[in-house]
Amino acid sequence: MREITVDLGPRSYPIYIGSNLLYSSELYKKLAGSAELMVVTDSNVGNLYLGGVLDALSDFKVKSHVIPAGEVYKTLDSMNQIINSLLSNRYGRSSCLIALGGGVVGDLTGFTAACYQRGIRFLQLPTTLLAQVDSSVGGKTAVNHAMGKNMIGAFHQPGGVISDISVLQTLPEREFNSGLAEVIKYGLIRDQEFYEWLESNIDNLAVKKAGPLGYAIERSCLNKAAVVSKDEKETGLRAILNLGHTFGHAIETGLDYQLWLHGEAVGLGMLMAAHMSMLMGWIPGSTLDRIKSLIQRAGLPVYLPEQLRNVNLRELMSVDKKASHGRLQLILLKEIGDVVITADYDESVLQETIRFFTSLRT
Amino acid sequence: MREITVDLGPRSYPIYIGSNLLYSSELYKKLAGSAELMVVTDSNVGNLYLGGVLDALSDFKVKSHVIPAGEVYKTLDSMNQIINSLLSNRYGRSSCLIALGGGVVGDLTGFTAACYQRGIRFLQLPTTLLAQVDSSVGGKTAVNHAMGKNMIGAFHQPGGVISDISVLQTLPEREFNSGLAEVIKYGLIRDQEFYEWLESNIDNLAVKKAGPLGYAIERSCLNKAAVVSKDEKETGLRAILNLGHTFGHAIETGLDYQLWLHGEAVGLGMLMAAHMSMLMGWIPGSTLDRIKSLIQRAGLPVYLPEQLRNVNLRELMSVDKKASHGRLQLILLKEIGDVVITADYDESVLQETIRFFTSLRT
Repeated sequence: MREITVDLGPRSYPIYIGSNLLYSSELYKKLAGSAELMVVTDSNVGNLYLGGVLDALSDFKVKSHVIPAGEVYKTLDSMNQIINSLLSNRYGRSSCLIALGGGVVGDLTGFTAACYQRGIRFLQLPTTLLAQVDSSVGGKTAVNHAMGKNMIGAFHQPGGVISDISVLQTLPEREFNSGLAEVIKYGLIRDQEFYEWLESNIDNLAVKKAGPLGYAIERSCLNKAAVVSKDEKETGLRAILNLGHTFGHAIETGLDYQLWLHGEAVGLGMLMAAHMSMLMGWIPGSTLDRIKSLIQRAGLPVYLPEQLRNVNLRELMSVDKKASHGRLQLILLKEIGDVVITADYDESVLQETIRFFTSLRT
Repeated sequence: MREITVDLGPRSYPIYIGSNLLYSSELYKKLAGSAELMVVTDSNVGNLYLGGVLDALSDFKVKSHVIPAGEVYKTLDSMNQIINSLLSNRYGRSSCLIALGGGVVGDLTGFTAACYQRGIRFLQLPTTLLAQVDSSVGGKTAVNHAMGKNMIGAFHQPGGVISDISVLQTLPEREFNSGLAEVIKYGLIRDQEFYEWLESNIDNLAVKKAGPLGYAIERSCLNKAAVVSKDEKETGLRAILNLGHTFGHAIETGLDYQLWLHGEAVGLGMLMAAHMSMLMGWIPGSTLDRIKSLIQRAGLPVYLPEQLRNVNLRELMSVDKKASHGRLQLILLKEIGDVVITADYDESVLQETIRFFTSLRT
């Protein structure tokens, strides 16, 4: 088992990474910090793991709340229903929520924990690669609003994260690859050595070999933890974690959040950011080729879907919440392992990048 | 104009108290910290002051959102509607909300600011005495849930508070007196000198004389700020601000939040806490008499309403969120200006206190 600490002063917490951790009563005893627990999960993950987790928690007062699976349930209404369960069962301010699932469950449960009686403890048990390397770490919680994703949320750090890599074995391939996009991201934004390791090990990762997988998750979490420790509430540096996300959100919005997974959009978004960096003369074509190759080897798309060929992606980017004072900030590459957050680019280069991808045929 | 600072490190903010401040463009320029403002108010307060406030804000991009007046609108649904307005008007993460109204508007707007895009700035323009001395200071924000008041919320400090005492002239007498209950509370919990000043000046306050009124608000805010500075998130000391509130919430719940105002319930709740303290031998009967007299002179009720004569108040107290591990914590008096937070009391004394008030005839 690997252990990392996210260093946030009084809000510091551990991340445990390893095989067969989900049913470890010992870990729960160490992390619960409360006698009253409620496990929140979705119908898919619940069918697989809820029974075992509840068994492992039999020494506690424990209830569970199951939401239907799917991003459309990441809403204020779902939060309200969890709060119904909490109040009906008389859970007080010292109780603790446990998020068992992927990003939707983690974000919803974390936000509920942030708001219930003005904030209670919660733990993350991420069951997707994406959640293990990204959404479960760093305290960003949220629900969606009809007019925008993650528009209602809070920064609320978990009390601990348990990342069981065994559960990734049953994860569908597309979902797994979607998580790899965020893993690649950490290499690109701040860890050249890890990026090169990924180039050598991507095939082992793709077949989910336990050793390389544990290492990749640990290294990803270490990178994220280092960034979050320096800028918990995204006032500056933390924005580098959004590499590829501004392009990616435009893709997701254009597809109405259907068809493509988040990581797939982020993967192509990173490639678009790299392409734009190349057009600006910041990285050579050979670096762009390396990036395209790794994204492709991770099983991620490198072309826009047909549906977006006639959509104005530029317009969709400008409503992104990372837009500041009307001028869209982008995260661009100086080299592999080094990015800048900038609003100082030529609009025509951004337009050219979008034109290139919308005209590119598979 | 009086100025106080609530000292919370990077979250410190000023409170301005004085006459005719609501339309001061200067103050808004000093506090806005943003070019994009949205004023949230309710239909009652909006009719009186919204036009003037918007005029004073004419140098900014400014919109307004008016909710119907009343506690029943302090809900997630109202928050969702404000967020609709924000997104429709493309308000970004650097925008600022302005809460123009009493506690309902302040709590709802503050919570919306806490959650919108994971937290934006907001200002408080409290228009009731209760809001000026209590709810606008200290960063507690919340909405109600069908199963409990303030069950969904956040600690989110405002960027500043403007307390205009002129607006109190039009406040209905019962609402004004309800605010006096919280003013008296500050004397009881930690400021004996202020309590004695109140005994000498309660009649001037009751007729809203500007000088004494400004002083009483300032001193109340100073007391609250001192407590909040030491315990922002209510992990200990801050609970003393709940003197009378556990009894008071039971009264409010028993009345289904109809009939009595919050401050009226708190006023009687403080008297009940004092009575219990007397039964425990902590304060003499003469002190209890002084407290009863001041509450009465403030125009506040000192008897339970008829409707609660046959209601089990003890049962209603035990669901209060200040209950910890099944044992109800109470704030009790050692003397005027000194309270303790304790779960170490004889249950029979609590029962006797309740019996005394339920059998007491007006």
